[in-house]
Amino acid sequence: MTDLPSHVEIHEEGPREGFQIEPGPIASADKIRLIEALAETGLQHIQICSFVNTRLVPGWADAEAVAGGFTAKAGVQYTGLFFNGNGLDRALAFKDKLTIGGSISLTASEGFTRKNLNRSPSENIEAMKKHSVLQQSKGVAVTRIGVMAAFGCNYQGDISPAQVVGTLRDGMAIAAETGAAIGLFSLADTMGWATPARIERTIAEVRSHWPDIAIALHLHDTRGLAVANAHAALKLGVTQFDSTAGGLGGCPFAGQPKAAGNICTEELVLLCEEMGIATGVDLDALIEAGRLAEAIVGHQLPSELIHAGSLNAFRRIAA
Amino acid sequence: MTDLPSHVEIHEEGPREGFQIEPGPIASADKIRLIEALAETGLQHIQICSFVNTRLVPGWADAEAVAGGFTAKAGVQYTGLFFNGNGLDRALAFKDKLTIGGSISLTASEGFTRKNLNRSPSENIEAMKKHSVLQQSKGVAVTRIGVMAAFGCNYQGDISPAQVVGTLRDGMAIAAETGAAIGLFSLADTMGWATPARIERTIAEVRSHWPDIAIALHLHDTRGLAVANAHAALKLGVTQFDSTAGGLGGCPFAGQPKAAGNICTEELVLLCEEMGIATGVDLDALIEAGRLAEAIVGHQLPSELIHAGSLNAFRRIAA
Repeated sequence: MTDLPSHVEIHEEGPREGFQIEPGPIASADKIRLIEALAETGLQHIQICSFVNTRLVPGWADAEAVAGGFTAKAGVQYTGLFFNGNGLDRALAFKDKLTIGGSISLTASEGFTRKNLNRSPSENIEAMKKHSVLQQSKGVAVTRIGVMAAFGCNYQGDISPAQVVGTLRDGMAIAAETGAAIGLFSLADTMGWATPARIERTIAEVRSHWPDIAIALHLHDTRGLAVANAHAALKLGVTQFDSTAGGLGGCPFAGQPKAAGNICTEELVLLCEEMGIATGVDLDALIEAGRLAEAIVGHQLPSELIHAGSLNAFRRIAA
Repeated sequence: MTDLPSHVEIHEEGPREGFQIEPGPIASADKIRLIEALAETGLQHIQICSFVNTRLVPGWADAEAVAGGFTAKAGVQYTGLFFNGNGLDRALAFKDKLTIGGSISLTASEGFTRKNLNRSPSENIEAMKKHSVLQQSKGVAVTRIGVMAAFGCNYQGDISPAQVVGTLRDGMAIAAETGAAIGLFSLADTMGWATPARIERTIAEVRSHWPDIAIALHLHDTRGLAVANAHAALKLGVTQFDSTAGGLGGCPFAGQPKAAGNICTEELVLLCEEMGIATGVDLDALIEAGRLAEAIVGHQLPSELIHAGSLNAFRRIAA
């Protein structure tokens, strides 16, 4: 039984995810060049930077320069990532250009919460209550619960659908206590444990508890299954995905320095368009943007499609 | 509607596909080392070499040394690729170690037939009639029709399911005329045009004409969709796949020197096992064999999984 959506909403995170883990500094002008190129492809949601501790993430020391410097295209929503009040204040300084939405961010793995955030799960719940209140106090609606390590964790092993539901219950309790109305669950495969079978089981379980809340997926290609995972999710009617041009990115905190990045936007777009699911994206332009990203970082990116070229490119040669 | 198989038959082609395209010579002893390592993983079908024109494919000038030199493991079927009578004779010299099956090999794309074989489609049909007779005259049963470029072609563009059916009809006519009983259609995505949607349409169309003939898939990861394609095919009950350890391979004749190789055996095994489909393969041992393949060729292979490590490896760390 399939329930294919008519269109998907792709949230491009290449600039934010990709540039934060590059070993060398990337010029702000190059970051802006990629952001502006991506906006010309038809992508309507682009995360442009991360307002994080610049000591921990030196690759985003220039978040303000990028947020201030790029030219926004009408009809495109731009976002910046933030995790705390300081980051939110930095984002709010650009509220004329950025779309600022609030989140409750949890992790299904206790091991990852301790390793990545240096908090126990209950400390993290308390922190998220404060963060939910804080965001709303600054006029930012909290509508989304994010769950990291939703399909497995390098520090804890398998994560069951029941653990994801438990984490979402924690999140919904935080939302209820702090007056937030949740419309979206974002499930992140932070360390690349998802497989189509896990995607199917977890989505079914989450939907059985919250049939009216939309599900978004943040997939990594760590073990090569990201596109297959998206395929499984599309068959279940999932309509929102994060992805990165060229497969930029990866998780520098997960103990896998050679791990592949996020699901490639190009490959996700090819998958969707071939299934008759509209993305609004011009794939040939997107492939060019992916090649620009590769040129900017100066090393080969994981996307196979940017190297092989689109079907259209060969159709034109064959015609 | 899904019809998941209980098990799949994986035909490992890494040694044959992979070593034929490496620019430098690979020592016969290294080829044998990989073949013997693969046989220890639980793989039961391994294509070990190519009995082809050594002037055109210098990487297989040592086919006899490899076929003669490796130690066969009981319960494992080893094959060698051949395209003509000379290749078949060379394979038959090792009939005590190799399983030798006959094929009718066609291409759904006229453009590729002309470019790759330097024949018109009708010339190729005549050649295949002679080849079918020849194989049978040497006691080799012809039970398989192979179709290259079954999902699209860099020289011709899209290939429709109707074109694949037409090609298979040609093949069945050759089989009928030459007294061959066909039990398997092998559809090859030679240049990486397949997508899950194309897989579904083509398999449905082929089955509507020949419901009782098994379908095998030979997938390339040229555009990053190979694992998603396998996922779509498994959902349709396809039970035979070719793949290569580490993602070795690629097609040196398709005008894409940077193209990725075949679907990675490791990622295919992970996909299947997670879907509850038995492969008989020890994934951790297979990942080690993929890493051995990478060490032998001396450059990074496309498999993400051999770099990230298996879920089991992290389960052990987390435990």
